[in-house]
Amino acid sequence: MGGGSDQDAHVSKSSPSWTTRTEAEDGGTRVINLDHGDPTMFERFWQKMGDKCTLVISGWQSISYFSDVGNLCWFLEPELGREITRLHQLVGNAVTEDRHIVVGTGSTQLLQAALYALSPPDASEPMSVVSSVPYYSSYQPLTNYLKSGLYKWAGDACSFNRDEPYIELVTSPNNPDGFMRQPVVNRSGGTVVHDLAYYWPMYTAITSPADNDLMLFTVSKCTGHAGTRIGWALVKDKEVAKKMTEFIVLNTIGVSKDSQLRAAKIIGVVSDGCQNLDNPDEHLFQYGRRLMTERWKRLRDAVNQSGLFSLPDFPSNFCNYVSEVTEIQPAFAWLKCEGDIEDCESLLRGHKILTRNGKQFGASTKYVRVSMLDRDETFDLFIERLSSIRL
Amino acid sequence: MGGGSDQDAHVSKSSPSWTTRTEAEDGGTRVINLDHGDPTMFERFWQKMGDKCTLVISGWQSISYFSDVGNLCWFLEPELGREITRLHQLVGNAVTEDRHIVVGTGSTQLLQAALYALSPPDASEPMSVVSSVPYYSSYQPLTNYLKSGLYKWAGDACSFNRDEPYIELVTSPNNPDGFMRQPVVNRSGGTVVHDLAYYWPMYTAITSPADNDLMLFTVSKCTGHAGTRIGWALVKDKEVAKKMTEFIVLNTIGVSKDSQLRAAKIIGVVSDGCQNLDNPDEHLFQYGRRLMTERWKRLRDAVNQSGLFSLPDFPSNFCNYVSEVTEIQPAFAWLKCEGDIEDCESLLRGHKILTRNGKQFGASTKYVRVSMLDRDETFDLFIERLSSIRL
Repeated sequence: MGGGSDQDAHVSKSSPSWTTRTEAEDGGTRVINLDHGDPTMFERFWQKMGDKCTLVISGWQSISYFSDVGNLCWFLEPELGREITRLHQLVGNAVTEDRHIVVGTGSTQLLQAALYALSPPDASEPMSVVSSVPYYSSYQPLTNYLKSGLYKWAGDACSFNRDEPYIELVTSPNNPDGFMRQPVVNRSGGTVVHDLAYYWPMYTAITSPADNDLMLFTVSKCTGHAGTRIGWALVKDKEVAKKMTEFIVLNTIGVSKDSQLRAAKIIGVVSDGCQNLDNPDEHLFQYGRRLMTERWKRLRDAVNQSGLFSLPDFPSNFCNYVSEVTEIQPAFAWLKCEGDIEDCESLLRGHKILTRNGKQFGASTKYVRVSMLDRDETFDLFIERLSSIRL
Repeated sequence: MGGGSDQDAHVSKSSPSWTTRTEAEDGGTRVINLDHGDPTMFERFWQKMGDKCTLVISGWQSISYFSDVGNLCWFLEPELGREITRLHQLVGNAVTEDRHIVVGTGSTQLLQAALYALSPPDASEPMSVVSSVPYYSSYQPLTNYLKSGLYKWAGDACSFNRDEPYIELVTSPNNPDGFMRQPVVNRSGGTVVHDLAYYWPMYTAITSPADNDLMLFTVSKCTGHAGTRIGWALVKDKEVAKKMTEFIVLNTIGVSKDSQLRAAKIIGVVSDGCQNLDNPDEHLFQYGRRLMTERWKRLRDAVNQSGLFSLPDFPSNFCNYVSEVTEIQPAFAWLKCEGDIEDCESLLRGHKILTRNGKQFGASTKYVRVSMLDRDETFDLFIERLSSIRL
């Protein structure tokens, strides 16, 4: 474990929410913000890992725009490419052979790069972009904010019936509801972007290596380093990978080298931990799985006890990675208000619990999305407060 | 000075162009790539500065998306904000009072954020974006690549005569030609984005603090850390700053914390160096100024000797920062072929010197832009090879 005093200094300085106040001491006054999927849950794991994941970068390093001039994605740090490939091979969640790796400033940038790459530059009409309800709340604004003539949001994939080219966004496990997903349109002239941000063993069973043409991942939900803003795409088609690279050059002239080097270090430590069977405490996916199991049990207990809410039921599957049957325990809870309550978000906001309204995901206001990835103290307060809600 | 062996290892591994071969030894076969403005010239300065600019970042730090929830730009690391303000105050090149700082993934992202913020969301026609010829070659593709309905490229500001709202991009000192610039359209309904990437004492005289409504800067051309991808905007209007922040949230959900912390460290060391009068070797702007003076002298000598080319002549100005009259010595040379040569880029490419064609800047093919910021060895080879060109 790393030096305690520095960490404490950091914690008290920049993490005002990192306290051990209970709901009683707090008096129910603290705002519990579970609107974002801020993965601060992983902070404790990385504190325990200490110095082995510390990045040291000298003032003269990585000055250039270029990382690897021989590579199609010339701003990808080779070390990061290697560590991404190694991790996928260890976990068995994605095929990396015959794929180009394109690094992005988070998978958000890569999603836009994919839309740019998959839309013809000279079509008379913008390409339709669809996703099944409930879909990730950012897909619509991301597609529409620049009023692009290349692509436009066309809503729920399940009701898309135009006989024209389209791009379907498939998030699996899905954000917000956690279910595993497949494309639903399946027509000629369509392409699919597979957003696999949550296809890691702490959230779901790894049933087979994903083998799609265009797959997106992010360190944010894999290791918890959201602030690092690093995502990657595994891309089969060379021309698509080239156009995605072109987008990132136009958009931000490449991707922070510092964050790439840090992500390489962190991902390397994750892989080392997975391979070190003598020390299960250093195994991120086991740590994450244990914590998620406990949190989901506590949430289900609170929900059952209250009678006001319900949660999805998930199938169990055999996980090739842990060699046992495991349950889905998503990064978000897709919470539904039962009975006459029509606006779940308002109800919870009235109790100072901030969540994201179901309508932002193309669904009913009876639903909200709740982050399951916050710090222990926040999660504890949330469970306590949720349990105390009476109509 | 930092540890030599690590640096050498780095240099030999990742910098194949870092050699001391002369043109004679090289036999004129090496491709000299001066197309990009890759600021590797600064590498040696940072090597000399050693450990004081080393960033150490623990595995558990900066996990969250959030840096400063109370700030309008909630993903700005407070430390970076403070160091930016301190540097501007020391150098006197921009007013920071009553300005919002918006951090971006390089000033490229901030330019797009500015276009987004300054274009009304519901106009019937996209807003015209103009800049005076010769303009930065990326402005046109940056404005048009997504075929946005919010804004579109409208070319040379000097010939813009439509009676409608517009955004004028003013780069000063200008990229590619190095001259100081002012807006030229000056009509009602227009807004101006001031790209001040090169308004630092190594490139030009600091005649007064820039006091514009929207000013863009980047560490790339200030400290040389292009790979860090950090830029910042100083924005007077709160609503514009909010919309720029919104753009960056949609585009990349904030900006790499690691790079922000590194930029804060580096900029802090630059300010310390400027204040430490006992050790002029640690003064980045003096170092940069000396090197640019020497390079521009050598380039002018080579150009005069050859008779095939010409360069702009610049006025001298009193620089408040160094308290003396100084010359403009831009980060790029705007080189013109004289006589019958119509395509300067082809001519130089024939001698394996890669430069950027004048037509990309809206100008004649008789011109090329040549980076003056590459490593010593590359610059030496360039001068030697340029001097040897005969028709």
